[in-house]
Amino acid sequence: MISGRGAPTRRQLLSAIGMMGGTAALYAMMTEFGHAAETRFPGPPNLSGARPGASVIILGAGLAGMLAAYELRKAGYKVRILEYQGRAGGRNWSLYGGDKFTEMGGATQNVQFAKGNYLNPGPWRIPHHHRTLLHYCKAFGVALEPFIQFNHNAYVHNTDAFGGKPQRYRALAADFEGNVAELLGKAIDQKSLDTRLTAEDQDRLKEALRNWGMLDGDMRYAKNLRSSSHRGYDLPPGGGVNGAPQPSDLLPFDQVVRSGIATNMAFFMNEEFQTTMFQPVGGMGKIGEGFARQVGDLVTYNAKVTKLFQDKTGVTVTYTDTAKGGTTEAKADFCVCTIPLAVLSQIETNMTEKKTAAIQAVPYSNSVKIGLEMKRRFWEEDAEIFGGHSFTNQDISLISYPNFDYFKTGPAVLLGAFASNAGGYRLAGMTPEQRIETALEQGSVFHPESYRKEFMNGASVAWNRVPWVMGCCARWNEDTRKTHYQELVAVEDRIVLAGEHASYVGCWMEGALLSSIDAITRLHKRALEA
Amino acid sequence: MISGRGAPTRRQLLSAIGMMGGTAALYAMMTEFGHAAETRFPGPPNLSGARPGASVIILGAGLAGMLAAYELRKAGYKVRILEYQGRAGGRNWSLYGGDKFTEMGGATQNVQFAKGNYLNPGPWRIPHHHRTLLHYCKAFGVALEPFIQFNHNAYVHNTDAFGGKPQRYRALAADFEGNVAELLGKAIDQKSLDTRLTAEDQDRLKEALRNWGMLDGDMRYAKNLRSSSHRGYDLPPGGGVNGAPQPSDLLPFDQVVRSGIATNMAFFMNEEFQTTMFQPVGGMGKIGEGFARQVGDLVTYNAKVTKLFQDKTGVTVTYTDTAKGGTTEAKADFCVCTIPLAVLSQIETNMTEKKTAAIQAVPYSNSVKIGLEMKRRFWEEDAEIFGGHSFTNQDISLISYPNFDYFKTGPAVLLGAFASNAGGYRLAGMTPEQRIETALEQGSVFHPESYRKEFMNGASVAWNRVPWVMGCCARWNEDTRKTHYQELVAVEDRIVLAGEHASYVGCWMEGALLSSIDAITRLHKRALEA
Repeated sequence: MISGRGAPTRRQLLSAIGMMGGTAALYAMMTEFGHAAETRFPGPPNLSGARPGASVIILGAGLAGMLAAYELRKAGYKVRILEYQGRAGGRNWSLYGGDKFTEMGGATQNVQFAKGNYLNPGPWRIPHHHRTLLHYCKAFGVALEPFIQFNHNAYVHNTDAFGGKPQRYRALAADFEGNVAELLGKAIDQKSLDTRLTAEDQDRLKEALRNWGMLDGDMRYAKNLRSSSHRGYDLPPGGGVNGAPQPSDLLPFDQVVRSGIATNMAFFMNEEFQTTMFQPVGGMGKIGEGFARQVGDLVTYNAKVTKLFQDKTGVTVTYTDTAKGGTTEAKADFCVCTIPLAVLSQIETNMTEKKTAAIQAVPYSNSVKIGLEMKRRFWEEDAEIFGGHSFTNQDISLISYPNFDYFKTGPAVLLGAFASNAGGYRLAGMTPEQRIETALEQGSVFHPESYRKEFMNGASVAWNRVPWVMGCCARWNEDTRKTHYQELVAVEDRIVLAGEHASYVGCWMEGALLSSIDAITRLHKRALEA
Repeated sequence: MISGRGAPTRRQLLSAIGMMGGTAALYAMMTEFGHAAETRFPGPPNLSGARPGASVIILGAGLAGMLAAYELRKAGYKVRILEYQGRAGGRNWSLYGGDKFTEMGGATQNVQFAKGNYLNPGPWRIPHHHRTLLHYCKAFGVALEPFIQFNHNAYVHNTDAFGGKPQRYRALAADFEGNVAELLGKAIDQKSLDTRLTAEDQDRLKEALRNWGMLDGDMRYAKNLRSSSHRGYDLPPGGGVNGAPQPSDLLPFDQVVRSGIATNMAFFMNEEFQTTMFQPVGGMGKIGEGFARQVGDLVTYNAKVTKLFQDKTGVTVTYTDTAKGGTTEAKADFCVCTIPLAVLSQIETNMTEKKTAAIQAVPYSNSVKIGLEMKRRFWEEDAEIFGGHSFTNQDISLISYPNFDYFKTGPAVLLGAFASNAGGYRLAGMTPEQRIETALEQGSVFHPESYRKEFMNGASVAWNRVPWVMGCCARWNEDTRKTHYQELVAVEDRIVLAGEHASYVGCWMEGALLSSIDAITRLHKRALEA
């Protein structure tokens, strides 16, 4: 597999090692190189040499299922996919103007967005280290553009701070850092701290705190042009006669702490949300479409699986055609089942008790996303916010600004809510119209002059009302991992499960793909042994 | 000026107020609205009603000069521009394959970059609050795309820390924050701190520190999956059987402090560098081209100004044609001079002593940029770095990764140095070939396996060797501001100076534009009074 002219690149080497020795060898080699591993993806799996004549039936045409189909067919297996929906992609999905969506409970929404606008109800951003997904996006011709995750100039709102008035992230973060730096500087001066640092290094730390927290010469965080250069000016620097800037007032530190800014700051340091993030040009659903261009010919749509049985001779899947009616039995030698656990737990199978217990053990998170189409980009034009999120402790949790077509005249779609937990359930319990009203009510706190005035139309998806997944994604905890995870992912005779639920990268597309690669690698091995 | 249907937007109101009452009224009104001002730009100047028949000669076809020409012509003035170079744009400039550049000292470089690749020798990024520039980019059809300023996954290198081994920004920043949080938490527990916080708020602060610094239940920053979720894992979460992540070792705190990470963290919090930043699609020079599409017909190129005189009847500018030879005298009623001070101070004028002293008082910074074309994007493919900068305390100061065509196969241009101060002078003193050798030598610290191996060709610009500016940009300090700034920007009879040097937004295109608007607004007033 080391190909091309000249010496192999590091990536080629790692890829080759990964194929020969698997994860453990790869990990050892990465460490040898002095690099912590950035990714679990050493390159596409090398499954060549299928068991002659062997067939695999794949349940679910989401990313895990389609990747399994793509790689297993390449390896020589006879592959087919059964998919409940009338489209491929699964939770990789975008809603455009003209789309129609009926949720459990019966409410139907007709999406009215203008051409080019969309809502990504499910995944919406891609970390730079999700190399499996990035690899297949490139291979399948899915164009990506930056997703602006971190925006210093967006707002943070907390009903318990500043009398409910939102503040800019930059002002809160600057004031948090400035106060923390000043306080720690004082503690060092009082020599009360066991810092395990030498006196010289304590001086270095003080200087670092001064630089980081924008403290003045007396190690104080104060109202001046220095602190304003981080938190924002009252009047920014200008040109000509009246160009001198004016510093801004600091916020009261107790209110800064109460705003919850520390949690927001930590959020942006989470490796899943670190820069640089990406999104597909034109909507997240373009990824599902890219995969479907490769394996769409293998998919039977509108196929609702009702039974999954295996015996010594093979796997039998019973499914009904939800469009035309009628029940069919499909047989294959092996099965990759990517059906979400919340749905799979309701399907009749003859899997072992342990496996069944694992399938039933993992709760699914709920989440609700709401797209609001606005007449113009008032967040850009009036509030200088280009992409990123404004956060709130209200049910909607955040509003998020579109990361494409910046500066464009005409309508644009805001993400008006990304609610989970109790807030998610409250929104899910509403009609689509009520959800939009709530999103307008709560989101107005950020842009009171424009939010309702510029609103045109909206659409929402409450994941626990989506019939083909009945939840957002699997939420493992330490206990369920310990008791059930290995049981869930183990190949059981002829069947293996795959999907984000069968990974430690839960709720991410990367988890679905890594799980799929691992599952088909083991199934292939089993097939050759069988 | 309040136009369109329905109630005026906040921006329209502010624009109208700005035009009627100027900056002071605008500032008062912004404060009234409860918004700190984000920008000094209330909209384009309203100069309608030129003094009948009056003419203005503009020196320099950079952004300040071209904006002056655009707005003054619109107002009814007879306008022409004299430009030293054979192209418009000034420091707004991109070098492409096929370009030729001769620096002072005689060295000529023939740029060899592949099609689509470029080096921006001057400005390269646009803050989201530089609304003047953003306004004219939109008005003149210059497409913009995000500039990735902040990249958690790029490197920080300091010869005095970690034995000279670069570390990821995220690991250094996480460890700095974690240690600072732990130390301040201890200080709070010792009750030795006068924090001006109530006991309840101190508890809130401790909780905030725990959340922000990823401390464990005992308020300790330790090696575990929690700290690794910020600093990076030794083995990241994966899929299937071997999916469990492995935490990474913490870095020694004394070395973290010595690395200078606090300064890098502060750098990204500087409002000039806060997200979201932009760049023109295809190179920064596209902005100069956009302006030139508007006023190119007014420009006399290759015109080297040698004398600038004024008397009661008008302004006389003497210039030589550097292409064809010959000296010409041009006359006009008024003059907007945007020639950089380092050059202007060498031109014969009859301006007052005070003005001349001001022109001579402001030193220009030097800086050197080096573009290195590499055969492939090894920083993306091998190191998961997509845009942003890796910093070093070596002369090159940083390397910066291209913010466009991510994932593309084929050659790409890295910014291999952005040197200033002593490092800038050392690089400027070298031949272009020596500069590239130094950039390869120093930049290899970040990507030792690939940097030299993938190198194809390079180009450099040392700004103190650029004949039409002889430096990078004006560096005011508190003293020179006090003594000379108002003198420099004041209209003197028929002449006014404009450019980034006549602003408090020095070294930024926005400063040049704001200065220009202020200068022509005052000159227009003077013209009507004259």
